[in-house]
Amino acid sequence: MVEPGRRPTIADIAREVGVTKGAVSFALNGRPGVSADTRARILAAAERLGWRPSTVARSLSNLRSGSVGLVVTRPRSLLGVEPFYMRLIAGLERALHADGRSLLLAVTDHPGDAAEIYRAWWSERRVDGLVLTDLRTDDPRLAAVTDLGIPTVALGAPGPLPGLSTVTGDDGPTLRAALDHLAGLGHHRIARVSGPAGFAHAARRHAEFAAAHRTLFGTDPRQAHTRYVADQVLAATRELLDDPEPPTAVVYDSDLMAVTVVGSAAELGVRVPADLAVLAWDDSPLCELVRPRVSAFAHDVDADGATAVSLLIEQLRTGTPGHAELSPRTLTVRGSTAG
Amino acid sequence: MVEPGRRPTIADIAREVGVTKGAVSFALNGRPGVSADTRARILAAAERLGWRPSTVARSLSNLRSGSVGLVVTRPRSLLGVEPFYMRLIAGLERALHADGRSLLLAVTDHPGDAAEIYRAWWSERRVDGLVLTDLRTDDPRLAAVTDLGIPTVALGAPGPLPGLSTVTGDDGPTLRAALDHLAGLGHHRIARVSGPAGFAHAARRHAEFAAAHRTLFGTDPRQAHTRYVADQVLAATRELLDDPEPPTAVVYDSDLMAVTVVGSAAELGVRVPADLAVLAWDDSPLCELVRPRVSAFAHDVDADGATAVSLLIEQLRTGTPGHAELSPRTLTVRGSTAG
Repeated sequence: MVEPGRRPTIADIAREVGVTKGAVSFALNGRPGVSADTRARILAAAERLGWRPSTVARSLSNLRSGSVGLVVTRPRSLLGVEPFYMRLIAGLERALHADGRSLLLAVTDHPGDAAEIYRAWWSERRVDGLVLTDLRTDDPRLAAVTDLGIPTVALGAPGPLPGLSTVTGDDGPTLRAALDHLAGLGHHRIARVSGPAGFAHAARRHAEFAAAHRTLFGTDPRQAHTRYVADQVLAATRELLDDPEPPTAVVYDSDLMAVTVVGSAAELGVRVPADLAVLAWDDSPLCELVRPRVSAFAHDVDADGATAVSLLIEQLRTGTPGHAELSPRTLTVRGSTAG
Repeated sequence: MVEPGRRPTIADIAREVGVTKGAVSFALNGRPGVSADTRARILAAAERLGWRPSTVARSLSNLRSGSVGLVVTRPRSLLGVEPFYMRLIAGLERALHADGRSLLLAVTDHPGDAAEIYRAWWSERRVDGLVLTDLRTDDPRLAAVTDLGIPTVALGAPGPLPGLSTVTGDDGPTLRAALDHLAGLGHHRIARVSGPAGFAHAARRHAEFAAAHRTLFGTDPRQAHTRYVADQVLAATRELLDDPEPPTAVVYDSDLMAVTVVGSAAELGVRVPADLAVLAWDDSPLCELVRPRVSAFAHDVDADGATAVSLLIEQLRTGTPGHAELSPRTLTVRGSTAG
């Protein structure tokens, strides 16, 4: 017996079966040098004692830790309210779990700290690879993972990145669909409130929204950047509404932003959707919590997480990064953009 | 130089300095057998190459993986909307990070699966210890961690558990404060909607709420159990309201439940708070999203996570489990229970 609290070792199995540690090692590693009968007895004892190859042995033999790392680079205070991250984490974890892997998680506000965490995880062999999200326009993490040569998949990357697997998406069609939907309801001054300008996806959507608005209405749209904090989202909205020619519809970059605005419409002095139509980029059950319910573009976070994980696992196996597309976004029309 | 993608090894340092691997090992492990000058050159080279003790070496020397495991045993679909879990994960991660540790995460609906994950993590040396939450009344995870002897802290445990560190809380005072607050507003038929009966905390709160209601009003309260799903929460509320003597106030076991009810008050045919006062057990920014805003009992999830982590780390150091109290809950009165 192995007393509780101690992991069974090869020595324990050797003692149990009455053979040498070398024989146990041969048997467990499928190498010749032990009889079929002894091998069977050793495997049975290993099973009985609950023995498994340790991280040690696996690290030495095939450099596999069994974990994939994710550093969420957003303020901790946001994580409790923004459904996207927990959905992403659950989606990644499900795909990793199906491959016998686990998710190693850290949270930090600063991309520079994330690079340090990657360095520590990698040198201590705690991870086999990484998932990167929320890429900044000038992101110190990219240099870090490239320098260290850590197998990495960038989820939601603006485009292919040398040496990395990427899951990329073209937001243009979705932004045009948003404008088409609102134009169809008679709107022609449509503003947009997005996250901080430093995010690669925010900058990209900003340019694509402006282009689509110009094509459709011949004018430049008002676009505000704000942090994902209720007060700042409301302040940015108020500023848009104070314009001599205020927008009659706003596209928000997250469900939480849009839900906050609909929830506080009375304080803003507008009726939704009569005075202001509200459309959210992300869909989530939060959109169903307020009245009117919030129209939103849904996307399959689970599927995108699974795509990222499968690219990364393939890269771990072959050494070659792969590329795939994000799942498309589909519009769910609810009361906040009713005709 | 070590090419990117490969972790520096003792052999790399030996080659760099021009000494034997044995000398490098002696120097890095602070053992005698190398001159002070050689030791300094070896340490400088190790620093320059970015060498760190591998999980392997640490596992062999002090059985430390650097990670603490958390298996969230709730439906994945819930994780994207219920703020508690992401707040808990962020809180645990912050406390672990401060101690140079990481959080290894898995998600599963079934406590039995969680026990299997613990077994695998432990035998593969992926974790040094575990954090348990959401204890069931008859929870297979307790036997698993006790049998395996995994250092474990149970967060929100109903009371001390043999061999485990625990962070326990007495919900009695909070439930009495809820009833006192509502009684002060003139309510005397106060119902409660809680999570599934299988959770240890749900069963405990059920009994304590009933006792407090009897003491205050001399009658047994109506209490419903439901899963944390919008439709079921509304159905449970409708059933309470269909009573010949319906409650005039309901205490919900989570912020999400209470916010769902306030958001759908019109569909339920009640005005909040005129016909029905609504009080939430957990507070979160969700309570500010609907109108009226939802009164709630706040608790410090970060502080509780930090307490759990510090008990676990102490147990890892000393081998002795410790005990502490959850942070107290404080009532924030908002519009949903206005006078």
